[in-house]
Amino acid sequence: MSLLAELQDIVGVEHVLKGDETAPYLTDWRGRYTGKALAVVRPADVEEVAAVVRVCLQFNTPIVTQGGNTGLCGGATPSNKGDAVVVLMTRLNKILEIDTDNDTITVQAGCVLQTVQEAAVQAGRLFPLSLASEGSCTIGGNLATNAGGTQVLRYGNARELALGLQVVTADGEIWNGLRGLRKDNTGYDLRDLFIGSEGTLGIITAATLKLYPLPVARSTAFLAFNSIADAVKVLSRARHGFGSALTGFELISAYCLGIVAQVFPQIKLPFSPDKSPWYALLEISDNESEDHARGRFEAVIGDALEAGEIVDAVIAETSAQSQALWHIRESIPLAEAATGKGIKHDIAVPVSKIPEFIAHTNALLQARFPGVQHIIFGHLGDGNLHYNVGAAPGQEEGFLSLQKDVYKIVFDSVYAVNGSISAEHGIGQLKKDLLIDYKDEVELALMRKIKRVLDPHALFNPGKVISSVEF
Amino acid sequence: MSLLAELQDIVGVEHVLKGDETAPYLTDWRGRYTGKALAVVRPADVEEVAAVVRVCLQFNTPIVTQGGNTGLCGGATPSNKGDAVVVLMTRLNKILEIDTDNDTITVQAGCVLQTVQEAAVQAGRLFPLSLASEGSCTIGGNLATNAGGTQVLRYGNARELALGLQVVTADGEIWNGLRGLRKDNTGYDLRDLFIGSEGTLGIITAATLKLYPLPVARSTAFLAFNSIADAVKVLSRARHGFGSALTGFELISAYCLGIVAQVFPQIKLPFSPDKSPWYALLEISDNESEDHARGRFEAVIGDALEAGEIVDAVIAETSAQSQALWHIRESIPLAEAATGKGIKHDIAVPVSKIPEFIAHTNALLQARFPGVQHIIFGHLGDGNLHYNVGAAPGQEEGFLSLQKDVYKIVFDSVYAVNGSISAEHGIGQLKKDLLIDYKDEVELALMRKIKRVLDPHALFNPGKVISSVEF
Repeated sequence: MSLLAELQDIVGVEHVLKGDETAPYLTDWRGRYTGKALAVVRPADVEEVAAVVRVCLQFNTPIVTQGGNTGLCGGATPSNKGDAVVVLMTRLNKILEIDTDNDTITVQAGCVLQTVQEAAVQAGRLFPLSLASEGSCTIGGNLATNAGGTQVLRYGNARELALGLQVVTADGEIWNGLRGLRKDNTGYDLRDLFIGSEGTLGIITAATLKLYPLPVARSTAFLAFNSIADAVKVLSRARHGFGSALTGFELISAYCLGIVAQVFPQIKLPFSPDKSPWYALLEISDNESEDHARGRFEAVIGDALEAGEIVDAVIAETSAQSQALWHIRESIPLAEAATGKGIKHDIAVPVSKIPEFIAHTNALLQARFPGVQHIIFGHLGDGNLHYNVGAAPGQEEGFLSLQKDVYKIVFDSVYAVNGSISAEHGIGQLKKDLLIDYKDEVELALMRKIKRVLDPHALFNPGKVISSVEF
Repeated sequence: MSLLAELQDIVGVEHVLKGDETAPYLTDWRGRYTGKALAVVRPADVEEVAAVVRVCLQFNTPIVTQGGNTGLCGGATPSNKGDAVVVLMTRLNKILEIDTDNDTITVQAGCVLQTVQEAAVQAGRLFPLSLASEGSCTIGGNLATNAGGTQVLRYGNARELALGLQVVTADGEIWNGLRGLRKDNTGYDLRDLFIGSEGTLGIITAATLKLYPLPVARSTAFLAFNSIADAVKVLSRARHGFGSALTGFELISAYCLGIVAQVFPQIKLPFSPDKSPWYALLEISDNESEDHARGRFEAVIGDALEAGEIVDAVIAETSAQSQALWHIRESIPLAEAATGKGIKHDIAVPVSKIPEFIAHTNALLQARFPGVQHIIFGHLGDGNLHYNVGAAPGQEEGFLSLQKDVYKIVFDSVYAVNGSISAEHGIGQLKKDLLIDYKDEVELALMRKIKRVLDPHALFNPGKVISSVEF
């Protein structure tokens, strides 16, 4: 039998897509990468996934796993060779178990993140992973890329939320590691090896995830600072004053607030963008009461004002006001897109190094490309900045062709403070070559060894993250 | 040159111990395992560790890494062959950096845990890892075994506290992964692969660890329950009522309280041991005030009393009273040792499965070994029980010879509820054969592949955790 006949045999004729039907799965959602595939296969369960992998092995056919196709680095898009099969995980979309005494939820990998969040809420629990694409991304993709998002400061990345996995290995076997245990010291940590490996070592088919209590109250404030150093001081004060109640500390530069004002004049801003060079959106989640949250909030913010670390603060009085403040933060990427194409960097540096990193890197960029715009915002609490660079006014044309040079300045600067060139978006195709430039040789060699031994035929998501051989 | 001469050349003659000098390092502290070694080598820094590894590779000599020698599974004790070199990490004992804005501490692997805790406190921070041997265990050993302890419920195991590692690989190369980042999605998670690998894949030489705010207040209570099911209900209530303020929920059976009363009559107990079948020590840590902690505590405990889930509760009024309550919990292992040798199990099961696990396993043990004592206590909040079994009265002699049969009943029961046969102590020598009995074949095969590729000459801690070949 041919490969396609074998695949049809496993999943049914209607679940092997060919020709035009495959188009939606061959381009990433930002439209940066387009590839080709022999077929898009939609298995129904873990046994079918394993059978598909075994058939692909037999035909020496590359496998690209795809969930909601919302990745930002082209990790789920096949190459142009057209020799691969795309394995679409969206039919594995069942919530398998909610255990409220153990505070765990077990779900198939193709579950949409928002479906998992909603199932948790119905059981009176919080599943805290939250990101812009939550309405369409899948939990399998979140784990494969170790997704971050807006709640990392308190709850960690996707990695920290997973207790157990079920995985189809590159041998086509099923590893059943769906354990809901907080403690288990029985051998090597395979779970965390598959998490973040972007489909290059196996296929995550299900996961047991942690649940948390639903917060009783949330408080939000918009703060203005005289300097980025003051913002770091207030972050430290907030960590200590609020403890684990601190769930958000989003940095916003005056430039970012300015473009929001310009593009969305209907949005009411708490401050004029020229009031201060830096702002932040601060959020706490409380498990007692609205009054308690408000009292804590006023005490800590009051102390920071008194210490002169905050110039001014606006505290949301209602949940509608709170949403309006978050809306400002969420509008930055749209305002950025509307005001010209930027060169984007999803970086992390130690929080203590942020002031020097920004000053130093801004100066280097100005020296080389006078007048470029610094579009800086992001998750200050995680040391994760979206440190984007826009064209100097009037010089938009051809600006993106400078990407390589801008990358070099920014990533050299990141490297100098022991930071990360990809904080939460992963490597995929986009940063595969950069990984080789900026990773320690010893670390790369270890990664290649693992790739080689777990995927000996190099069939799992080839061309992504790392190759088993050195080029 | 001979191996010893080469080693002397690297670390200095006085740091290559031979003959009688090696004795303290050849027996584990419980005295269960004794081995032999060619020498005990004490490198001064990471370069010396790497040089020692390279020389051992050259001479095809096995390497056993040792920190404070406080492990419970014989993981740091060499075999009887006498062909190995013990690499003692205690000279790598420097605190390298404390970064209070980033809330991280970077330490060499030979630092004693208590030294790290104290350095954190001096900087106004908490390093939360805490366990009985903290005065002598090293942070390298804590990471190599993914140590648990009393604060896991809130802060996680050693794994969750590490952001970056420096490791000497089995090729004798230095991987510098000392990153202090909360977000970094650049390739495979090597950090978590080395953590918990018990010296079988490389040598951890330094780590960057997370720091937390110091709690302002702690409250402690001793609770009595009518049933283990009620204890689980109150745990769930406490998780939701206290959120992340909940830092301890230690289960104590009536039998355990009884032997504490019997062995240590001077200890004042909050309740008579025959009041209830089950007790728990509950602790919260608060970052506001004593008053606030007390208020929260009384509200949640009051609700549980009203719901009939708690029979009675004693709340510590002073920190001395709180310490006295903890002292009861800490006295259980001593009371246990004084009243006869038990067969011990460090297991984890999903919290929701604990009532059925205990009822079922107790019944199986009574059916097979009538009259045996159930010595049950531990970290209920983590699903981690020290489920120990004592001889029936008058049948102490030869009881330990039943270990294999008791293990089988208990671990089969653990396996049936998807639990762990080693929650926080690791595998070492003690549970190496059990691992093969109770681990999924696919998981074992993956572990062997990783062992084979990262330690191709099988020189790192041979005979521990897993072998690269199947026996």
